[in-house]
Amino acid sequence: LGTIEQEVQKRMLDDRIREMFYLLHSQTIENSTKILLENQMISLMGLSAKLEKLEGSEQERIKHRSGITQRILASIEKLQNPKSCGDVNTLVCNLDKECGFGCQLHHVTYCAITAFATKRMMILKRDGSSWKYSSRGWTSVFEPISKCSFDEAVGKTELKPFTDPSSARVVSLGIVDSLLTKPAFLPQAVPEQLLGNLTALHSHPPAFFVGAFISYLMRFNSETKQKLEESVKAIEFEKGPVVGLQIRRTDKVGTEAAFHGLKEYMEWTEIWFKVEEKRQGKKLKRRIFIASDDPTVVPEAKNDYPEYEVYGSTEIAKTAQLNNRYTDASLMGVITDIYILSKVDYLVCTFSSQVCRMGYELRQPAGADDGSKFHSLDDIYYFGGQQAHEVVVIEDHVALNNKEIDLKIGDKVGIAGNHWNGYSKGTNRRTYKEGVFPSYKVINDWRSFNFEALLD
Amino acid sequence: LGTIEQEVQKRMLDDRIREMFYLLHSQTIENSTKILLENQMISLMGLSAKLEKLEGSEQERIKHRSGITQRILASIEKLQNPKSCGDVNTLVCNLDKECGFGCQLHHVTYCAITAFATKRMMILKRDGSSWKYSSRGWTSVFEPISKCSFDEAVGKTELKPFTDPSSARVVSLGIVDSLLTKPAFLPQAVPEQLLGNLTALHSHPPAFFVGAFISYLMRFNSETKQKLEESVKAIEFEKGPVVGLQIRRTDKVGTEAAFHGLKEYMEWTEIWFKVEEKRQGKKLKRRIFIASDDPTVVPEAKNDYPEYEVYGSTEIAKTAQLNNRYTDASLMGVITDIYILSKVDYLVCTFSSQVCRMGYELRQPAGADDGSKFHSLDDIYYFGGQQAHEVVVIEDHVALNNKEIDLKIGDKVGIAGNHWNGYSKGTNRRTYKEGVFPSYKVINDWRSFNFEALLD
Ligand SMILES: Nc1nc2c(ncn2[C@@H]2O[C@H](COP(=O)(O)OP(=O)(O)O)[C@@H](O)[C@H]2O)c(=O)[nH]1
Ligand SMILES: Nc1nc2c(ncn2[C@@H]2O[C@H](COP(=O)(O)OP(=O)(O)O)[C@@H](O)[C@H]2O)c(=O)[nH]1
Repeated sequence: LGTIEQEVQKRMLDDRIREMFYLLHSQTIENSTKILLENQMISLMGLSAKLEKLEGSEQERIKHRSGITQRILASIEKLQNPKSCGDVNTLVCNLDKECGFGCQLHHVTYCAITAFATKRMMILKRDGSSWKYSSRGWTSVFEPISKCSFDEAVGKTELKPFTDPSSARVVSLGIVDSLLTKPAFLPQAVPEQLLGNLTALHSHPPAFFVGAFISYLMRFNSETKQKLEESVKAIEFEKGPVVGLQIRRTDKVGTEAAFHGLKEYMEWTEIWFKVEEKRQGKKLKRRIFIASDDPTVVPEAKNDYPEYEVYGSTEIAKTAQLNNRYTDASLMGVITDIYILSKVDYLVCTFSSQVCRMGYELRQPAGADDGSKFHSLDDIYYFGGQQAHEVVVIEDHVALNNKEIDLKIGDKVGIAGNHWNGYSKGTNRRTYKEGVFPSYKVINDWRSFNFEALLD
Repeated sequence: LGTIEQEVQKRMLDDRIREMFYLLHSQTIENSTKILLENQMISLMGLSAKLEKLEGSEQERIKHRSGITQRILASIEKLQNPKSCGDVNTLVCNLDKECGFGCQLHHVTYCAITAFATKRMMILKRDGSSWKYSSRGWTSVFEPISKCSFDEAVGKTELKPFTDPSSARVVSLGIVDSLLTKPAFLPQAVPEQLLGNLTALHSHPPAFFVGAFISYLMRFNSETKQKLEESVKAIEFEKGPVVGLQIRRTDKVGTEAAFHGLKEYMEWTEIWFKVEEKRQGKKLKRRIFIASDDPTVVPEAKNDYPEYEVYGSTEIAKTAQLNNRYTDASLMGVITDIYILSKVDYLVCTFSSQVCRMGYELRQPAGADDGSKFHSLDDIYYFGGQQAHEVVVIEDHVALNNKEIDLKIGDKVGIAGNHWNGYSKGTNRRTYKEGVFPSYKVINDWRSFNFEALLD
């Protein structure tokens, strides 16, 4: 295992090669020249991926990452299972936020991180028994989040609205959207005790940390576990790599996100397979898994891409449409899709959808560094309600036109997005100017917070 | 320090990023697009260079490389300084091959490697006293190569022509050009005892091995050492990096090499400085050292590149012209130039010149991995008379036109050169076809030989 600096630089090189490809891919260049250049870049990306996954050192890294996951989970478990239920500080979370499954789970994750940061046990309001996705409540699919019930932990104690600090034993947390100021523990903050190691070991420490909470919350009950295992088995992962596409349509399109045709998803799927072929040094059968709330996509993929093996259930997609959404079947469908998305080798989706972000988050604490194993057609990763995501400038930039902004080494830039063409958009905190700049000239500047509940 | 595989892959990635730049640099692309792409590639090259030179691990690597150099030198010394001079197996080498200094030293290097491979002490004919570069002979500038004199070691013993094996105690070696078959120990063979480690530690093991011999042969006597130190001091290396240009003209041009204008050398010098600026993260004053046999180049550089600090002696260049070449002053001149070329941060030259290749070789065993710290405007590295230089295919290639050749993974290709535009030329040993192919689709296939004289 190299030094932190070495590991970081290696990952950065990988990232910058990818950014170079984005730039090249977006340029207008005579076709045969472009193919020549892209092929060589693809080979370079494969070589770089090989470096990351080299046997031996990768086994070491997986052990270290898993160790960190265990440490976070053990810390959460300790807080969630106190010796006596009725006298510890407690935070009550309402499962039933008015939104979809991903949105609700992210809300519970926000509760869990808040409870953890303030050293409180988190309890679901009425144990999550009232849930629009299932009349049987949280435990219809998941394990209880604590050995303490709502009655034992809260009972008739008056709920005070959450403040930090608060002398109340039991507080109730609203939705993140209602916060007036953002506490320093909000995502994408990472425990300061872990930031150094995680930075060395993982390309996206905040998603790793959030993912650990989600994987705690989504401990499936035995019935669900069995169903999920069957679904995973059907995909025959042992046959070779699978790219997961999550295609969010219906109520999202035109409101919170733009429409993207299947072709766009397939373009990045194909690029990934080419890179992976270089990494593995052999031809690979094209295999994809499609999750969607649009039942037409799986048939479309099977029809238009005959050389692809297509997995994905039109039945599930039907249950995901608005009129069927809040049912037990739809719940099992979205859980299945998210679970499989967390198992595939690469994700192609729109990060504007919480379903895809959950698949991304859930896979992070599993051992491998999957922080860059995705292509989002729109947003970069974010956690709804997060603190401003900032990057720091490592190379000066002089704006070449009025859409670009100047950068000076050391400037902080609040980042709004990556255009996936070599350029990102953001606001320079020094000049207050907003505009685009070359993505390779900045690096992430992760926030940290002292989570005292984290065990040594 | 990583595993061999890791170190090799990392170096390969660095190499392939450079090949990507060569490809890009040679393409006809609309100018603003090209600048955009090249700038990002330059940043990538800087990042990659940073990874190689990271503190800590680089110190470790330097220690390991120096250890290998010491091992080779101790082995040579042992063979060269036997207990008694008159009864060990001996190889006699004639210093005065009919050619320039580089050519002569390479001839002596060939003798030394042959002696080493066949476990013989090497002795210069009449101790190198007859030398067209100096009436005072070898020791006018160098230390004797053995504590045994020609008289002690050979005396009146009859010289048999070299064969391997040979039962004669004293054999005499002709010039490499007269060999009918090429012995397996000829460059670019590397001791099989070292190949694994050297491959992990250095990007050009054969040049490292040859360089160790040259650095043994070129142990300067104290008078020469003092003069060289003064010359090096004048360059003020402590002020920042210096690129060394060796510009071979006069009798070489039109016979063994093409003419290259100063502008071409400066183009690659400027590219290196840009990359180095990215690596160091700061602006760098442009500083170059010019060695040449053309006295007009230093004034031309001073005149045409006012932002450059130019080191280099027009006086030395004058002594390097044909009519002054075989003099003591010319000898000291070429030694000085080679010595400084072995100290600069980067070399830009034509590898068709033995002067530049000597500067390149001499620097390799010094500790850093300088195997790719050069840009040659013509040949790739070779050792005159070497065994065929072969590469092995790691990615299939289908010829796109009748200048290209097909490659299949595992094919061996005898390599003729790199066109420094992303393509190399060679002969596929499987198909017997000669032509060009993308350089990034092959890797070097170094030869090895069991040099029994190598101490443990
Ligand atoms: N099974 C399944 N359901 C989906 C999919 N996309 C959307 N849905 C349904 O639509 C809801 C969307 O709400 P939410 O999870 O908050 O994600 P977002 O609106 O895409 O950010 C999900 O919870 C599912 O019920 C999908 O790919 N698969
Ligand atoms: N001082 C000096 N002498 C040179 C230079 N280039 C050529 N010469 C002289 O020309 C000779 C060229 O012969 P050789 O060393 O065999 O190299 P090659 O002919 O360039 O392959 C050298 O040995 C020098 O005497 C140079 O850059 N500096």
